Amino acid sequence: MMRDFSHGTAHLSINTATLRKQLPLPRIIEACAARNIPAICPWRDQVAAAGLDATAKQIKDAGLVLSGYCRGGFFTAADAAGLAAALEDNRRAIDEAATLGASCLVLVTGALPGALQGQPAYTDIGLARSQVFDGIAASLDYAKKANMPLAIEPLHPMQGADRACINTLEQALDICDALDPGRTGALGVALDVYHVWWDPKLEAQIARAGKKRLAAYHICDWLNPTRDLLNDRGMMGDGVVELKKIRGWVEAAGYSGFAEVEIFSDRWWNLSADEVLDTCIARYQQVS
Amino acid sequence: MMRDFSHGTAHLSINTATLRKQLPLPRIIEACAARNIPAICPWRDQVAAAGLDATAKQIKDAGLVLSGYCRGGFFTAADAAGLAAALEDNRRAIDEAATLGASCLVLVTGALPGALQGQPAYTDIGLARSQVFDGIAASLDYAKKANMPLAIEPLHPMQGADRACINTLEQALDICDALDPGRTGALGVALDVYHVWWDPKLEAQIARAGKKRLAAYHICDWLNPTRDLLNDRGMMGDGVVELKKIRGWVEAAGYSGFAEVEIFSDRWWNLSADEVLDTCIARYQQVS
Repeated sequence: MMRDFSHGTAHLSINTATLRKQLPLPRIIEACAARNIPAICPWRDQVAAAGLDATAKQIKDAGLVLSGYCRGGFFTAADAAGLAAALEDNRRAIDEAATLGASCLVLVTGALPGALQGQPAYTDIGLARSQVFDGIAASLDYAKKANMPLAIEPLHPMQGADRACINTLEQALDICDALDPGRTGALGVALDVYHVWWDPKLEAQIARAGKKRLAAYHICDWLNPTRDLLNDRGMMGDGVVELKKIRGWVEAAGYSGFAEVEIFSDRWWNLSADEVLDTCIARYQQVS
Repeated sequence: MMRDFSHGTAHLSINTATLRKQLPLPRIIEACAARNIPAICPWRDQVAAAGLDATAKQIKDAGLVLSGYCRGGFFTAADAAGLAAALEDNRRAIDEAATLGASCLVLVTGALPGALQGQPAYTDIGLARSQVFDGIAASLDYAKKANMPLAIEPLHPMQGADRACINTLEQALDICDALDPGRTGALGVALDVYHVWWDPKLEAQIARAGKKRLAAYHICDWLNPTRDLLNDRGMMGDGVVELKKIRGWVEAAGYSGFAEVEIFSDRWWNLSADEVLDTCIARYQQVS
C-alpha cells in the first residue's frame, strides 16, 4: 500500500538547486516554510553564501528538516595531493551536514579528474572507480563518528566521464556491500529517478537496497526529447518516467522518507519561485 | 596478443552513416574501395536510394564485404497492427541484408513507440522491453532460414526513451541466452563503444558474450563535453573512450571481425568525404 501523496505536502522536499537562480537560500527556506513544505536539501555553495550557523538556525527555527545535503564526493584526482584534498573537503562536508542536521550527505562521486573543467587528467575510468571506492572507504569512519550517513548517488551514464563514474544502482550497492557489509545505515544510496529510470535492473536493485540502503529519493522527469546532458530535467509529469511505479518499488523496499524534487533546467529557473514551488506541490500530489 | 592496426586497413569498416551528408552510397562505396577499406555497413535508406540489386552488384564488384546492415528493430508499437507491421518490416530488412551478403542485421530495438516522433503512445518501458523480446523472438526463425544473424545493439541509456530500450550489454545478452541458448550464432550483439564504454560490467559482459555473440564491433569516441544526445559522436582519439583496452577485451573474447567506424556528427558531416575517410584510417591505425 503506497503512501497517499494526493493531498498536502507531508512527504515533499525541495532540493534547493531547483530555485538556485531565483532566490538565495534564506529566501528559499522562507518560501518552503510558508507552503508547509517540511524538508529541503540545500547545496554547499548556497549554505556557504548564507553562512553555516545562520542557516542551521534558520532551518531549525522554521521547523524544517533536511532530506540530505548536497554534496560530497569528487574523490578522484590526478595525484596524491589532489586525493588528500578531496578527503579533507569531504570531512568538511560531513561536518557541515552534521551542523545542519541533515539526514545524509549525498555523494556525487566524481569521474575522470579534470573532465568537468574540460581536460581530463587521465581516461582510465577503472582507475577513477578505484579512487572513488578508496575515497568513500577513507571517509566512512569520519562519517560514522559524526553520525552522518553517506549516500552514494549513481549518476546517469551520460555524466559518467565528468561527474560520476558510479552509474548504476547495482554498482553503488556493490560498494555499499563491500564497505558496510553489516548494513549499519552508515552507507547507502541517493536514488534519483532521473539517473536510474532507464535501468532494466532497477526494480530488482531497489529491492536489494532495502530500507537500510535507501537514504534519499529524488524525483523529477526525463523529457522526450532531452536537449542537454545536464540542465534539461523535466518537472514531474512532463516526461516519461513512471514515477508512481518507481515509488511503489521504493516504498515496498521499506523507504518511508521524503520525495525530494530536484530540477535543473532553464525552463524552470526562468520562472518565478512561486510558480515553481506551486507546480512542484501540484505535481507531487498528482503524478509522483 | 591484439591484432596490429598500426598499418593498413585490413580490419577497418566504415558505417556509411558517417558520410551520409556528403555522398550517396555508390560514391561512398567507390571512395572506400579506392582506399582499400575492405568493408562497409550501409543503411537501409541509403540502399533504397541506390537500389538494392544495383548496390549488391556494386559491392560485390568492388570486392567489399559488409560488416553489418543497419538496421532492423523498432519492434514496439501501440497496437497489434503496429506490432505486425514492425515484424513485416524486419523480414524485409532480413531479406535485404541477405541479398547484400551482410554478416549480420543490426537491431536498434526501439523503445517507447512514438517517442522518436515526439509523442510516446505509452511510457511503460517494461512493456516496450517485452515487445522487443517478442519481436526478436518472432523474427529469429525467419532470420535463421535466411542465414542472417541478428545483432542486438544496446544503445546508450540516454537514448532509452526514444531509440532503444535495450541499454546494456548484459540486458542484450540475457535476451540472446533466452532466445538462443545453444549459442548457434543466429543471435548476438553489435557492440558500439559509444553506447557501452561507461558500463562498469563491460569487461565481464564482453567475456560472457564470447565469439559466438559478438557479431559486430563499432568504434568512435565519447567527447567531453558532449553537447547533443544523438549527433555529437567523436572521432577516435578525440574523446575519453579507452579504445585499445576495450578492443583487447573484445579480441580476448574471440572476436576477429572488423572495427567499424560509426560517427554521427555535424563536426564531421561538414567536412569533405576525403578528409573524413583519411582521418578514419589514421585514427584507426593510431588509437583504435
